[in-house]
Amino acid sequence: MKNDITIAQEAKLNLIEEVAKSIGVDYDDLELYGKYKAKFADSIWDKVGDNKNGKLVLVTAINPTPAGEGKTTTTVGLGQALGKLGQKAIIALREPSLGPCMGIKGGAAGGGYAQVVPMEDINLHFTGDIHAVTSAHNLVSAILDNHLQQGNLLEIDTRQIVWKRVMDMNDRALRNIVIGLGGKMQGVPREDGFIITVASEIMAILCLAEDINDLRERLSKIIIAYNFKGQPVTVNDLNITGALSVLLKDAIKPNLVQTLEHTPAIMHGGPFANIAHGCNSVRATKLALKLSDIVVTEAGFGADLGAEKFLDIKCRQSKLKPDAIVLVATIRALKYNGGVNKASLSEENLNALKTGIVNLEKHIENMQKYQVPIVVTLNHFVSDTDKEVNFVKEYCETLGCEFALSNVWEKGGEGGIELANKVLYTLQNKESHFKLLYEDSATIKEKVETVAREIYGAKDVIYSASAEKTIKQIKELGMEHLPICIAKTQYSLSDNKDLLGRPKDFTINVREMYVSAGAGFVVVVTGDVMIMPGLPKRPAAENIDMDQSGKIIGLS
Amino acid sequence: MKNDITIAQEAKLNLIEEVAKSIGVDYDDLELYGKYKAKFADSIWDKVGDNKNGKLVLVTAINPTPAGEGKTTTTVGLGQALGKLGQKAIIALREPSLGPCMGIKGGAAGGGYAQVVPMEDINLHFTGDIHAVTSAHNLVSAILDNHLQQGNLLEIDTRQIVWKRVMDMNDRALRNIVIGLGGKMQGVPREDGFIITVASEIMAILCLAEDINDLRERLSKIIIAYNFKGQPVTVNDLNITGALSVLLKDAIKPNLVQTLEHTPAIMHGGPFANIAHGCNSVRATKLALKLSDIVVTEAGFGADLGAEKFLDIKCRQSKLKPDAIVLVATIRALKYNGGVNKASLSEENLNALKTGIVNLEKHIENMQKYQVPIVVTLNHFVSDTDKEVNFVKEYCETLGCEFALSNVWEKGGEGGIELANKVLYTLQNKESHFKLLYEDSATIKEKVETVAREIYGAKDVIYSASAEKTIKQIKELGMEHLPICIAKTQYSLSDNKDLLGRPKDFTINVREMYVSAGAGFVVVVTGDVMIMPGLPKRPAAENIDMDQSGKIIGLS
Repeated sequence: MKNDITIAQEAKLNLIEEVAKSIGVDYDDLELYGKYKAKFADSIWDKVGDNKNGKLVLVTAINPTPAGEGKTTTTVGLGQALGKLGQKAIIALREPSLGPCMGIKGGAAGGGYAQVVPMEDINLHFTGDIHAVTSAHNLVSAILDNHLQQGNLLEIDTRQIVWKRVMDMNDRALRNIVIGLGGKMQGVPREDGFIITVASEIMAILCLAEDINDLRERLSKIIIAYNFKGQPVTVNDLNITGALSVLLKDAIKPNLVQTLEHTPAIMHGGPFANIAHGCNSVRATKLALKLSDIVVTEAGFGADLGAEKFLDIKCRQSKLKPDAIVLVATIRALKYNGGVNKASLSEENLNALKTGIVNLEKHIENMQKYQVPIVVTLNHFVSDTDKEVNFVKEYCETLGCEFALSNVWEKGGEGGIELANKVLYTLQNKESHFKLLYEDSATIKEKVETVAREIYGAKDVIYSASAEKTIKQIKELGMEHLPICIAKTQYSLSDNKDLLGRPKDFTINVREMYVSAGAGFVVVVTGDVMIMPGLPKRPAAENIDMDQSGKIIGLS
Repeated sequence: MKNDITIAQEAKLNLIEEVAKSIGVDYDDLELYGKYKAKFADSIWDKVGDNKNGKLVLVTAINPTPAGEGKTTTTVGLGQALGKLGQKAIIALREPSLGPCMGIKGGAAGGGYAQVVPMEDINLHFTGDIHAVTSAHNLVSAILDNHLQQGNLLEIDTRQIVWKRVMDMNDRALRNIVIGLGGKMQGVPREDGFIITVASEIMAILCLAEDINDLRERLSKIIIAYNFKGQPVTVNDLNITGALSVLLKDAIKPNLVQTLEHTPAIMHGGPFANIAHGCNSVRATKLALKLSDIVVTEAGFGADLGAEKFLDIKCRQSKLKPDAIVLVATIRALKYNGGVNKASLSEENLNALKTGIVNLEKHIENMQKYQVPIVVTLNHFVSDTDKEVNFVKEYCETLGCEFALSNVWEKGGEGGIELANKVLYTLQNKESHFKLLYEDSATIKEKVETVAREIYGAKDVIYSASAEKTIKQIKELGMEHLPICIAKTQYSLSDNKDLLGRPKDFTINVREMYVSAGAGFVVVVTGDVMIMPGLPKRPAAENIDMDQSGKIIGLS
């Protein structure tokens, strides 16, 4: 089959105003970015206020493996299939980050015949939202360091600055740095570091804010450091809440693109459910619900990370309620979880499948705890045998889930009809009794331990001295009611990327914690997960190029 | 009078496609960014290829003072006035940088009734060009440090890395940093630093490239470091020329906006004529020449920096030839140069004016060396007296220049009619015999000394040991034929910001030098000029905000 970018480039796109028209949005409520991308102007909100909300379908997956799962592909394909069935459906996705595009992961606009387009623009600068977050975030840093330089009136303790700088790049050499060297006129020397932009608290705020006023309120509350008395110093103390809001005034507007089959796709907000909360924006999801009957959205990586945060953070704060959850798996990934090496995944291997399916089993059990109806779907590969597929189907049905085979990568919407029908059946016949995993009133440790035990399957949690200290501090700050956002490897249910399948009797190691008072959660960093990724030996950037005609090649 | 942003917000803008239509550009040749900004699609180039070129007018100024000169304002006002006179004129400007917007300088979209709009967007993220340069630049850094981490096959000497990182921010604490700390998995420790994005060689390349192929060729030649044998290591050696070109594919397209009077304004390329070459892009200027009869463009800061680089770098490389030069001064700035303090500038003071006018005199003499006809214009303030104005007028006419009073800040195009008529008269009656200041074949030292003596008025040049070493290296690399790009304080003709007027008998101190092999010039850093600006005690960011209705306030 053709590669993703070739398929995307051969597609005949509709003008974005036509895509908007298909969901009843006028040209005047759009701000165009070229012919095939647009932002929704603020004027849209008054117009849709009285619309009935559609149904919300969350797509999530088993733990990712090198075999590939195709969660975004399935999300896009499901949207396309619902369209084929005459449903008024919108896809609500996250925006790709440039860092991984140039690194190892590649783009994030689906694959095969289930893609959002224009995929090159989407994977590169898109409408500049992530750049705006970078600017806003680094403005805080520049103002903070300037404050130190100009006399430090706020008495900030340079050893207790919790605000790092950001860059939308995989750049490990910036993880730990020393800044302000060179003498009196070159700043105050101190330790610092860069994290990737999508892990910025400002990205989380952009994704969780209900509107510009909420955005502003949240920005003002960001804790950037502690003073010599141990009291928090906030963005508000730096007098730049206004400037940050202004820098984000366009970034807060959701973006509209389309799938290869012209299904409207609202892409807005940051990815990275491993080191951030990793959901698309509340505004995008809510707007999509007002504009359609069914919204298909996704959460990043495995359900232990993306879905857990979608449900326990995003839904908690925004009062959104999913009506169904689609859980994506592949035969290949399950066999990989069952111990088969990458080279042998195309061979039928029922034993390995039976061993590896425990990963899927655990994710099904986890999602059932939220009391939302589940549809499991297998993203089909040509090498999958009927026996293997049937085994998974029966396994899922025994656990009370709907099951559907999906072949959207190869066939687009047509390949997702079975899945779409199962989703429609579920929405019509099974009620969602969505409940959160833990209460606000639980202590921070109770929250961490609930997620660790209930979702990850850990036997216990160990906290570093630094984490223990932060927990104490959180209590003193009166912020124990906040939900938690765990940063953890995506490759395992545990915090050790090598433990595949359904690991048991393991310990979750909490390395550090910090309060994102503006985003409204406590970040809990586990294992050796890095908030700034590195590049591989041969970065994807080396393959990206333009051909003679100016067409981009090598993006995937 | 109302402040700039209020005037800009009260303006009734034309849709950008109407502005395009006024210069014969079809909707299909635009890529819209909202309703009032657009990029020219690549399709425009074939269509205008056979058009006759218009005349090129360069606007420059005396050295800036805290009194304000209004070069951009005059450029915009002149364009508006030419429009009022029925001329087909286009303004070709540089894009503002976010750093100074949040720092001390404020925006760069003109002022009063001579502004380009939408000024908020233009001063903030605009169409993302500078963000694209930031991404491309920092990708080189990330790949470079990853190369060190992965085994350093190219044998890069970490003590000889000349490629710093960039950020579009005034952030002095990032000038001198140490990166790669924290152990084996966190990169290779080394000294590094950030410069402001607009000083990036990639920005210079974007501004000097004739087309995407030239861009690509130039990117590949960038020298990022030297290996242990002392040989240059380039972007090409890192295999990312393609990825960089892809990241810049939209940034290379010129942007279209409009003035308050709907004059088309092409804004494209970086500012900062003090620490960079500081001209708008060659592509923008050439496109403007194809689309109009008169193009009014500007070069940054005083004529010693902006105009010298426009003429000796941009015109040298692109074969552009200015037909007239407009030199902007104010009575207030001349009096400031004559020793009057800021508080007393509104009082008539002919003696101070006579003392301070030597700054203007030197710039006139300088521009005459290029053999281009000159129009001097006084950007009028209400406090200027007739005696003062007449003194300047006679002074200029004695030196063989045309003279015009201009009042575009208060009156828009109407206030620039006298200036526009003088420019038209000059274009019709005075021929430009443009010649470069120095030949390619001169040595690097000869070039530096020519600019230092002829333009700055220095008595000699002293080179640091490091600069001497680089000069030797440049010779060995066979790059002595390149023009030079001097980084120098904008406030004085000398490299000491405190020497106002027309300093004499001073020495230019060359601190360091580096080769921008892709941009095609040698950067010569003088005095204590900083390639990463700092923030003032009270940064402009503290004033920027949104009002209840979402309108931006405090941008200037």
